[in-house]
Amino acid sequence: MKISDIITSTTVLTVLLLFSCASVRKTDSADFPAIKAQGYYTAGGTVRTNPGTFDPGNVYTSTAGQTVHGDHASYFYQIPVNSRKLPMVFLHGITQSGKCWSTTVDGRDGFHNIFLKDGYSVYLVDQPRRGQAGQSTEDASVPSDAADQMHFDMFRIGLWPQFYTGVQFPQDKESVNQLFRQMTPNIGPYNNNLITDGLSAVFDQTGPAIFFTHSAGGIIGWKAAMKNDNVRAIVAIEPGMFVFPEGKIPEISKNTFTEVTGVATTPETVSEEEFKKLARIPIIIYFGDNIPSKPTKVPGEDFWRMTLETAYEFAKAVNSYGGNVTVVHLPDEGIYGNTHFIMSDLNNKVIADHISSWLKKNSLDK
Amino acid sequence: MKISDIITSTTVLTVLLLFSCASVRKTDSADFPAIKAQGYYTAGGTVRTNPGTFDPGNVYTSTAGQTVHGDHASYFYQIPVNSRKLPMVFLHGITQSGKCWSTTVDGRDGFHNIFLKDGYSVYLVDQPRRGQAGQSTEDASVPSDAADQMHFDMFRIGLWPQFYTGVQFPQDKESVNQLFRQMTPNIGPYNNNLITDGLSAVFDQTGPAIFFTHSAGGIIGWKAAMKNDNVRAIVAIEPGMFVFPEGKIPEISKNTFTEVTGVATTPETVSEEEFKKLARIPIIIYFGDNIPSKPTKVPGEDFWRMTLETAYEFAKAVNSYGGNVTVVHLPDEGIYGNTHFIMSDLNNKVIADHISSWLKKNSLDK
Repeated sequence: MKISDIITSTTVLTVLLLFSCASVRKTDSADFPAIKAQGYYTAGGTVRTNPGTFDPGNVYTSTAGQTVHGDHASYFYQIPVNSRKLPMVFLHGITQSGKCWSTTVDGRDGFHNIFLKDGYSVYLVDQPRRGQAGQSTEDASVPSDAADQMHFDMFRIGLWPQFYTGVQFPQDKESVNQLFRQMTPNIGPYNNNLITDGLSAVFDQTGPAIFFTHSAGGIIGWKAAMKNDNVRAIVAIEPGMFVFPEGKIPEISKNTFTEVTGVATTPETVSEEEFKKLARIPIIIYFGDNIPSKPTKVPGEDFWRMTLETAYEFAKAVNSYGGNVTVVHLPDEGIYGNTHFIMSDLNNKVIADHISSWLKKNSLDK
Repeated sequence: MKISDIITSTTVLTVLLLFSCASVRKTDSADFPAIKAQGYYTAGGTVRTNPGTFDPGNVYTSTAGQTVHGDHASYFYQIPVNSRKLPMVFLHGITQSGKCWSTTVDGRDGFHNIFLKDGYSVYLVDQPRRGQAGQSTEDASVPSDAADQMHFDMFRIGLWPQFYTGVQFPQDKESVNQLFRQMTPNIGPYNNNLITDGLSAVFDQTGPAIFFTHSAGGIIGWKAAMKNDNVRAIVAIEPGMFVFPEGKIPEISKNTFTEVTGVATTPETVSEEEFKKLARIPIIIYFGDNIPSKPTKVPGEDFWRMTLETAYEFAKAVNSYGGNVTVVHLPDEGIYGNTHFIMSDLNNKVIADHISSWLKKNSLDK
């Protein structure tokens, strides 16, 4: 498929969406704002120095005293002319990189283009030890796991090889191919404090900004907001993990799923003082469809059931300190079929509109 | 450093360059063309299927019959309104990803922005098993090598900790920090046939295009051009490896440097029929400064001496079949101080102008 075909099919799809949904934002190609600046940069990171004395004459034969710079975040940014005041920083989840916020698997605009066209500056981040920020200061073993079908189920697209009825995911072969090829592994041990440091360094560079997180990026959102005042709002798409004050982990959240998915989901605890910081900023949390309301033996579905319940507990906890946390379970608002990748689902412009209303309500859209 | 500071310092630098060099292209922020389309996509790749029978009820507990999609290329693309006819595809070298063609270590425009502003469509590729295309179908061991100082020397920025006199590289600490953080490792065994397949798949999507290669990407340029007719021209920045017809490897190129740098530089051989295909397209090859003309005991410098000599032999060989290969050793044209990263050096706009003249001469700029 040539890029020109992809663009054409995107236009066709946009037109169809315009007819099928009155509230959708028009996003044809004429809508890109003039670009003021764009490019790539890195933020944060650590340096490891090898033992021994550096010998300038033997840099090719001895690594003694040589350094490796790693564990930084890397990002692509675009700043439109006359941009809105607060930029948007986008952090991916497990198996993903910054590109998961951009072009969808069937070539439509993701949140990257949608919000850029709406006048926001955008930062697409690869977290430390992932994607273009792949250099780690620790050795890595990266097995090539055959887990496409597990991910298909875990991302709630369906129960492989079946799609959920009415799922907001394109069912052609090439879209599924692109879904699987969007994944990229951890390089070096996973360490969410190190990732939080990297993201906090990104916010030092952006200044005050809105933080979009997805899935495993969720925990980084909470921790970065406690660490860096430049995190002025959080839009969390199906965060997989939460924080609670010490001694206050709710019962539902203690029964984790680690042995099956390899994802640690037991909430982290922080001091009450730290936790209270989350009450200073507006937070909205989105969950999609096909999350059962009662325990089920389908592991992926049951994981999300517990996570959604934990989200409600998290909102209650932050709001008890005067916070402003909203949990949106989309089916409760009559929006059906969303997968774990709400930001790139077929109805992602409807979701973007929903987010835009919330940003406006909280005066984050100036 | 905040992004606004980086942009400001870039503007200041651009102004300085405008005064210091009459031929430089003006690239202030007002110069970005209107964007018609942009986004990310993947191309090519392979699929590995685990042995055993897939069990839909046990995707979390058994990998039997599950697949992994990997070994694809991934790219970011931007297509301006009224773009020039031939897009530009950019492939990085060793330790790098697509971003090495974009923002320089000191925040200036790289070839990405420079040629986009000049009306070209641009594709920044992460090759299979690198960066955002990190998913491999083979297990990977990724050691965290302490090799910053080796790279500094090998990239001919200087002999660490000294910079070469007059080197076209910014000497502030943050620029050196960004240089080291631009690196990202291979994930999975290096295999240049597999990478060639991935890049050929990119050219299937772009249609006819100009191929920019850097360093270890050089060999991919030659092989992709023999494989895919959509490669219509090659601009090779310090290619590290060449191809020759069977039995015709020149003497100078047989003495490789593998034991020191780990880079295989012995030319590959192909049939005469295949090799002749390189004579169908215009090719220009650039080399920078601080490459000695006689053997030296400084390994990095001597490696590039042999590589430059091999480049001349390669040009002679292709041109003997009616080819159009030009080797530009920049100091021979009075352009001094260039490192291995010619495309992001302080004088990269001078180099872009040089390339633009060559594109025009070969009617590649329509």
